Amino acid sequence: MAKERAKRREGNEIEFSRIVAFSDGVFAIAITLLVLAINVPDHLQDEQLAEALWGQRADFLAYALSFAVIGRFWIIHHRFFGEVTAFDGKLLALNIFYLAWIALIPFTSEVLGDHGGEAAGIVLYAANLSGVVLTGFWMQASAREAGLTEIDAASHRELRYRSLYIAGVFLASIPVALLAPGVAPFMWLALFFDPAGRFAAAEPKG
Amino acid sequence: MAKERAKRREGNEIEFSRIVAFSDGVFAIAITLLVLAINVPDHLQDEQLAEALWGQRADFLAYALSFAVIGRFWIIHHRFFGEVTAFDGKLLALNIFYLAWIALIPFTSEVLGDHGGEAAGIVLYAANLSGVVLTGFWMQASAREAGLTEIDAASHRELRYRSLYIAGVFLASIPVALLAPGVAPFMWLALFFDPAGRFAAAEPKG
Amino acid sequence: MAKERAKRREGNEIEFSRIVAFSDGVFAIAITLLVLAINVPDHLQDEQLAEALWGQRADFLAYALSFAVIGRFWIIHHRFFGEVTAFDGKLLALNIFYLAWIALIPFTSEVLGDHGGEAAGIVLYAANLSGVVLTGFWMQASAREAGLTEIDAASHRELRYRSLYIAGVFLASIPVALLAPGVAPFMWLALFFDPAGRFAAAEPKG
Amino acid sequence: MAKERAKRREGNEIEFSRIVAFSDGVFAIAITLLVLAINVPDHLQDEQLAEALWGQRADFLAYALSFAVIGRFWIIHHRFFGEVTAFDGKLLALNIFYLAWIALIPFTSEVLGDHGGEAAGIVLYAANLSGVVLTGFWMQASAREAGLTEIDAASHRELRYRSLYIAGVFLASIPVALLAPGVAPFMWLALFFDPAGRFAAAEPKG
Repeated sequence: MAKERAKRREGNEIEFSRIVAFSDGVFAIAITLLVLAINVPDHLQDEQLAEALWGQRADFLAYALSFAVIGRFWIIHHRFFGEVTAFDGKLLALNIFYLAWIALIPFTSEVLGDHGGEAAGIVLYAANLSGVVLTGFWMQASAREAGLTEIDAASHRELRYRSLYIAGVFLASIPVALLAPGVAPFMWLALFFDPAGRFAAAEPKG
Repeated sequence: MAKERAKRREGNEIEFSRIVAFSDGVFAIAITLLVLAINVPDHLQDEQLAEALWGQRADFLAYALSFAVIGRFWIIHHRFFGEVTAFDGKLLALNIFYLAWIALIPFTSEVLGDHGGEAAGIVLYAANLSGVVLTGFWMQASAREAGLTEIDAASHRELRYRSLYIAGVFLASIPVALLAPGVAPFMWLALFFDPAGRFAAAEPKG
Repeated sequence: MAKERAKRREGNEIEFSRIVAFSDGVFAIAITLLVLAINVPDHLQDEQLAEALWGQRADFLAYALSFAVIGRFWIIHHRFFGEVTAFDGKLLALNIFYLAWIALIPFTSEVLGDHGGEAAGIVLYAANLSGVVLTGFWMQASAREAGLTEIDAASHRELRYRSLYIAGVFLASIPVALLAPGVAPFMWLALFFDPAGRFAAAEPKG
Repeated sequence: MAKERAKRREGNEIEFSRIVAFSDGVFAIAITLLVLAINVPDHLQDEQLAEALWGQRADFLAYALSFAVIGRFWIIHHRFFGEVTAFDGKLLALNIFYLAWIALIPFTSEVLGDHGGEAAGIVLYAANLSGVVLTGFWMQASAREAGLTEIDAASHRELRYRSLYIAGVFLASIPVALLAPGVAPFMWLALFFDPAGRFAAAEPKG
């Protein structure tokens, strides 16, 4: 495996498009499985249905949050592979490792929806998403080092800042969750503020 | 993200086809997950199987209805992206928001099948489908404004009428469901009457 | 929709490939969901695991049968769309109707695995597969009539014989199941004998 | 079916890409369904969540193991079809048989996670993976014999060694599991040592 040379994207279109097709498949399934976390109320009197649905509002919130999160990761993955010009066994392996974190989200999201007020649920979710971001950054850095991407220095810098910023927010929320579980999820709102572009622009040109 | 320019479809075929592949994945999974809403009867005497299956006829109806609904949304999505010639970050984000409504249907459809005679189940389902239609219309209008589609004025008008008509039927069924739950689903039959083409044709040429 | 003209496959590759991609997605998901019908034994002493697995041999048989069945339908669908040169709204709608029968198989297969010795389970399964075959035949005949396929007369005849033969076997097993449930599944073995080629060859050239 | 001639990959791109798309779909769904094997703890006091998650560490291990296993099989499948230049009905049928083993993994993996310390669970898992490897080897050898691949003799030899080595490790662990269930899974660590390249290189050139 180690001795295998990288294959160029052109001339191997079917193989290359299978990598993204497989990845898209995992993303699409993971994002669609999120809905299974919302329990369908049964064995109850019909009059209580509205109440039961309202009682599941944490599940709906977790669905919306995780759909947005997986969707955003998909966009980042999509953009990254848009710049990839060749692939080797290592990129394939790292991509599968990356997808293992993505495919875990329906589970950690369901735990978050059911136990959102408790430290363990929040830590689990934050650890999962940190795993996604750090593995994604590893994959990108490794691909760039091996000359598999065409990505220019500025975009790579931006991707790096964005990755570290997102991972940082999730990792920082872990100790907070252990002390004050109710506060930690609010820290994730910091993700809507995306300083990556600004930081990258401020850095001297490489 | 805001400063990013739109990418043309030609020259970015792999990236573009990933967007539709991911969307198709979500549609295909959501439509196939519908079957999980039909409970497999167990822990019963074999003689009662036919009865148990008959007792689930509301589940079969919900399956057929939602399969047709998701299928029709897929055709509309398919037609829309057939006219898209470029994409930007906003289109990607709106598409993911749109898919979040689609992926919710297996849940709301299951609730409808189990509690179809009650207001809350009907309101939930109608709200979900209105969410699909209105987000879809938002996505289309936004793409057209940004010059990302080649769609001609007449077709856009037809799409707009069709979207508003479908959303209107679902939204109108919500207050009806609160007063007379048994009547509301019959209002949805109005969807088989599609006046969009006629209205669009009657409008003066733009 | 009725006035819409058929679109040629060339010039609409992305749209055309979405139709097959969506169909393949539904096939792939339905075939993979079959595994969910095999219950994982739990809440039992470890020593009883082998016994519990053996007790589920009907589930394993249903899995193998339905995997082969969906796989074969996929091959037929694959071959049919390999000959399709244009598509219109009617073909799309019939294809979605066809997929609704395919996506139902995980449910009817699970019922068959759990209640294989009883008439209702067998009738349900046979009805489902007859639905697939007859809708598939309808789709093919309609596409041929509208000039959407390049299929030659001999192949079409073969497809027609094969469709009617398969549907005939399943439909014939329904009354048998009502009288002698234990016998009906053995009738399905007739599917391994495929006389379509021979019949088609014997027919005078059109 | 037997008389059907092989179709070349060029000239049948859509049909060919459907085969890999369908296969990728099954791989992607099977790998993503693994997450459903991890039970979400419910009906418990929130304080016990961390404990409950810790109690499921065997499920997490089975998830990681099976994700790596399916991922590796996908890479092998991906590489094999990268060399395929034509396809016939037999290759399609063998591919579906192969996928039936892949799609079974979420079930056997869940049993392994829940009953990892017991012989039956380990034997089931090892038998499943042996089924994958041996069917994969059958498919490859058959495709090579029919002249459907461009694979050179050295690569084919390597693939053969790798297949037999992996199958051998799993098959050898079956009798061990019956005697000492605790030891068998550790035998699978031998898979990380991949002697295929070396053996193949040592063999006289064909």
